[in-house]
Amino acid sequence: MTKKQQGKQSVRFENPPVICGAASVVGQKEGEGPYGDCFDQIELDPKVGGDTWEDAEGRLQERAAQLAITHAGCGKEAIRYVVAGDLLGQLMASSFGLIDLEKPLFGVFGACSTMGESIGIASMMVEGGFADYVLAMTSSHFASAEKQFRFPLGYANQRPKASTWTVTGSGAVVIGAEGAEHGKARIAGITTGKIVDYGVKDTMNMGACMAPAAADAIVTHFTDFKTGPEVYDRIITGDLGMVGKDILLDILSAKGYDIADIYMDCGIEIYGKDPQTNAGGSGCGCSAVMLAGYILKQLESGEWKRVLFVPTGALLSVVSFNEGNSIPGIAHAVLLESLVS
Amino acid sequence: MTKKQQGKQSVRFENPPVICGAASVVGQKEGEGPYGDCFDQIELDPKVGGDTWEDAEGRLQERAAQLAITHAGCGKEAIRYVVAGDLLGQLMASSFGLIDLEKPLFGVFGACSTMGESIGIASMMVEGGFADYVLAMTSSHFASAEKQFRFPLGYANQRPKASTWTVTGSGAVVIGAEGAEHGKARIAGITTGKIVDYGVKDTMNMGACMAPAAADAIVTHFTDFKTGPEVYDRIITGDLGMVGKDILLDILSAKGYDIADIYMDCGIEIYGKDPQTNAGGSGCGCSAVMLAGYILKQLESGEWKRVLFVPTGALLSVVSFNEGNSIPGIAHAVLLESLVS
Repeated sequence: MTKKQQGKQSVRFENPPVICGAASVVGQKEGEGPYGDCFDQIELDPKVGGDTWEDAEGRLQERAAQLAITHAGCGKEAIRYVVAGDLLGQLMASSFGLIDLEKPLFGVFGACSTMGESIGIASMMVEGGFADYVLAMTSSHFASAEKQFRFPLGYANQRPKASTWTVTGSGAVVIGAEGAEHGKARIAGITTGKIVDYGVKDTMNMGACMAPAAADAIVTHFTDFKTGPEVYDRIITGDLGMVGKDILLDILSAKGYDIADIYMDCGIEIYGKDPQTNAGGSGCGCSAVMLAGYILKQLESGEWKRVLFVPTGALLSVVSFNEGNSIPGIAHAVLLESLVS
Repeated sequence: MTKKQQGKQSVRFENPPVICGAASVVGQKEGEGPYGDCFDQIELDPKVGGDTWEDAEGRLQERAAQLAITHAGCGKEAIRYVVAGDLLGQLMASSFGLIDLEKPLFGVFGACSTMGESIGIASMMVEGGFADYVLAMTSSHFASAEKQFRFPLGYANQRPKASTWTVTGSGAVVIGAEGAEHGKARIAGITTGKIVDYGVKDTMNMGACMAPAAADAIVTHFTDFKTGPEVYDRIITGDLGMVGKDILLDILSAKGYDIADIYMDCGIEIYGKDPQTNAGGSGCGCSAVMLAGYILKQLESGEWKRVLFVPTGALLSVVSFNEGNSIPGIAHAVLLESLVS
């Protein structure tokens, strides 16, 4: 076991990679929420000038990628790899949206935990010396997700209180080696999650599917790093929403951890108290745009010193669900530290 | 740029990771082909004791994973991460098949190039010191693939000559650090591919979709490593089939490379001259089981000294196809060297 291996499932970087550029591109509804001012671009056309919902989502990725590279200031040539994925079957948004970027691509899927997975892989590539700069990103789109996972939009189905609203948006970060200019935060470590299945079968309650996986990733992180909630300014999950939040806090409480005071969920935050979104926002894009648009700014300013960022995913598939399967969860934690001492 | 970075898109490992265990589990048709004796397990039940095609494919993954770990001799505890994926929407086979493995999972998608992608990521994790042992794997299943991408089996559609037959099988390798026992071959380097889109729209001709991406990966590999066909015992693509093979050789010939004498395609090989399979085998499992069952044995014995293994993927989605999109390709090359001097 090398020095970089921390506990059972974690990595502590010896030379922590740095997020040196970030970008968030969102839709109108996200732009009208309480974090609207934080995002780099708000696109009013739900199809983003494209022909289909999938095309629209791909265009969000393309824009976020270009903008993150511009913000990083390293130049497109310096980007060696892209690690990207989305919720759609065969990663349609990434597969088509990133063609014109012409970069070697590692396609990844971790449902809504994808931003945690892509940052984890990209960080290891950079710290391992395999690349100077790697772009890590993901996206989601309300309409492409509803079309794939739930009902046709025209059907206007009723949404229960536990349901969440898939965020239309793409978030991207450029990860560079330690000492890179324009640093926003350092990636001190990662805790990669296992699939956790509590047998939940309610597609309208993704929070309940994901909360056990989030709890597992957070507790494993504490154990691996021999820490507890007290050393973090925030512990931030991806898209548990109001229902998932309660379950997560309950599970952690039963394990002896009280994180309520420092807890935040991107899904609960992104739309504020908009009644249409019920339990909150969700989708790969939710935690990705909140990271790029808000969380990294708090770290860059030094307002927050240490954040555990835990995107959460529900491994929902229409086929497996219709075959009677449960919806397992997975979550990947990223330990972010401010560069301001 | 560090010493590990080779050319524009490649990595040359300073301390090459080693494949220290491998396993292949296939279906009846694959077992009856010319390589039947090479595979570890031949499963006669197309549902592998499960209820659905997706379940069956997940069970193939679970078996291949367990067997590869046994063959590696490192013990399950030593496996730090799993890098796995498949063709199905939301990676159903990996998401459900690998739950009981209880290992941190990086889900990946590169269509039928997935084995190249998972080996690439796993190799960087091991060589970078982030893990002692990583399991890299993938699968496909004829029936789950037909159901998702083409027609219901009961419809008994006619298959054109250019079509391929999705392999039912899962291949897995355990990758360990240099010096690991039971070494079968070393991973000397990788060349990660870009998405290449020649605008092909024929879902019954995957070979034509993928051949340009394979050519791009192979030429990039030659350029990055400053080599040519003469230093390889074999250059082996994943599942181009008879049609894709001709296109690949033509493209390479036009670029000044003649690889015909050392060229092999797992898809052309796996079923021999079975007329039912038309242009050959395909699917993530095709190159994965041929690697685990045959290619690694040739390297382990020293029969082959150096092989460029290039799994090839067609980024086909039913949704994007029905929306009028083309089928872009991607290919990831892995440079394998024999440990026998």
